[in-house]
Amino acid sequence: MHTFVFANRPSIVSTSTVVGKREAEGAYGGYFHHVMQDDTFGQETFEKTERQMLSFVIEDALSHAPKGHSEIDAIFSGDLMNQIISSCFAAREFPVAFSGLYGACSTMALSLALGAMSVDGGYYRNVLCCTCSHFSSVERQFRYPLELGTMRTPTAQWTVTGAGAAVIGRGKGYPAITRATLGRVVDYGIVDANNMGAAMAPAARDTLLTFLRESGERAFHYDCIITGDLGRLGSQIFLDLMREKGIDIRDNHMDCGATVFQIEKDNFQGGSGAGCSASVFNSYVVKKLQNKEWKRVLFMATGALLSTVSSFQGESIPAVAHLVEVEA
Amino acid sequence: MHTFVFANRPSIVSTSTVVGKREAEGAYGGYFHHVMQDDTFGQETFEKTERQMLSFVIEDALSHAPKGHSEIDAIFSGDLMNQIISSCFAAREFPVAFSGLYGACSTMALSLALGAMSVDGGYYRNVLCCTCSHFSSVERQFRYPLELGTMRTPTAQWTVTGAGAAVIGRGKGYPAITRATLGRVVDYGIVDANNMGAAMAPAARDTLLTFLRESGERAFHYDCIITGDLGRLGSQIFLDLMREKGIDIRDNHMDCGATVFQIEKDNFQGGSGAGCSASVFNSYVVKKLQNKEWKRVLFMATGALLSTVSSFQGESIPAVAHLVEVEA
Repeated sequence: MHTFVFANRPSIVSTSTVVGKREAEGAYGGYFHHVMQDDTFGQETFEKTERQMLSFVIEDALSHAPKGHSEIDAIFSGDLMNQIISSCFAAREFPVAFSGLYGACSTMALSLALGAMSVDGGYYRNVLCCTCSHFSSVERQFRYPLELGTMRTPTAQWTVTGAGAAVIGRGKGYPAITRATLGRVVDYGIVDANNMGAAMAPAARDTLLTFLRESGERAFHYDCIITGDLGRLGSQIFLDLMREKGIDIRDNHMDCGATVFQIEKDNFQGGSGAGCSASVFNSYVVKKLQNKEWKRVLFMATGALLSTVSSFQGESIPAVAHLVEVEA
Repeated sequence: MHTFVFANRPSIVSTSTVVGKREAEGAYGGYFHHVMQDDTFGQETFEKTERQMLSFVIEDALSHAPKGHSEIDAIFSGDLMNQIISSCFAAREFPVAFSGLYGACSTMALSLALGAMSVDGGYYRNVLCCTCSHFSSVERQFRYPLELGTMRTPTAQWTVTGAGAAVIGRGKGYPAITRATLGRVVDYGIVDANNMGAAMAPAARDTLLTFLRESGERAFHYDCIITGDLGRLGSQIFLDLMREKGIDIRDNHMDCGATVFQIEKDNFQGGSGAGCSASVFNSYVVKKLQNKEWKRVLFMATGALLSTVSSFQGESIPAVAHLVEVEA
């Protein structure tokens, strides 16, 4: 069994998000907690900016946490930077246990699943789950120096400049994480590092089918099934792959990547990056649950598990999707 | 509280290790399960070798697992490669849930702590915890191309070519993981990436003091307090830092890095890398516990949380140490 049940209803008691200007102009602009005035956040390098955004949402989520939840035992965090330096350096500022994770763009769901496990099992009282990404730090690490002005391919996505954090604790009246499925690594042989939606869609299907089979739930029972950053093409592939299995989720599926930016030629397939689903989940999705507009959702962030080295060595792109079920 | 108790005694039911020739010539040569005949393991690149070593120990640990424990639900793994590609690509071969971790050289203890949590809490039945490193892949990623033949500084360590895996399940008669402490990120301002022992020693002290304070245990009650890869100088600093706090563990401390290689001028401070403590723990340490030569040990792997980018940008080196208590 890859799915586990949280009997003690670990809850999302506080969240915070910060994004860049371009993200704030998109569909969720009214939901993000904070918008940066420029893409540096007062830092000298984009890597330091990314880390600063992460520290900022950690501190902000803690400062807005309800009484009894503002003291955390641990941080569960990861990011896309080599050796997850954004998380490691942000964690340095907080004197709590640190569990470093790597799930590429699936990190928000992975951190929620493991963080909720630690609270549900009584190992920790309150924990903080978070991740981030920055367009410029990711772009120059994985693709080309920005200064080159390299053309983007039609299947390319645009890394979201964003960070999201959630405080998980036991409490009533908050959205609760009720189940989780950690995904398998799935590889469909896609080798184009500019077409990650296609690489990730089979992983998303695998995890969703695993969850539905192991839990006995039906897909249409959910107000929304939220994927991370499949993008527009990847979402289409995912929906087609699900329909092949007789499950039609066209009416209750939303992809954070496909919807986060205004549709303009620049963004092609939409957003990506660990900060994409993290910023949308911790603002828009949590708000909808808090308002009881949604009663039950599945949040399934997807990650492409490549590196520049693996791509240079001719490898295909393995992918993973992690899922959490959240109830209002 | 950063320390948690495992009431259901998740146990180490099976382990496997594989190392290179140089490692096999050292103090633990008689304990490692497998030794590679050359440093490629039949692969075209060192990155693929590292991954192959990891797949190998996963499969080997599973094939030797006792009845009822050979089917695992999840793999908890990480490594030093950018985007932990060794773990991601190795996990692709096993159709089980994958939790990607990053703790640099502390990964073995992190994976044991989280894996044991998932089994203790009843979320998973059996899980596999593992990590690896390869001298040549690490060296060229973090330091210089091997072909340059760059001189090493006197404080430099030598990355261990090794992989280790442990199957964790509930069962009687095996060494059991009874408590764990996830460490805080500690930064003492060391900026020399060739002196990681000095960067990690304060983190080791912090985690050990936290464990002793929170558990109420005394250091001398343990047959051995095993650190990961502080190296010879780092171990000396760690012992001094502990004595400053009135705790003398000179007689029951062992560092995997300081002892793994034969003392020769090449190795300077000893071994390092995620595979260092992983290969020593899963062979020598577990054997001593199985034989009841040791009754209780603390295994505390340490990690330096730097990247080449953070060093180039003038940052100091944050470090972390994660601890598990294991009883025979």
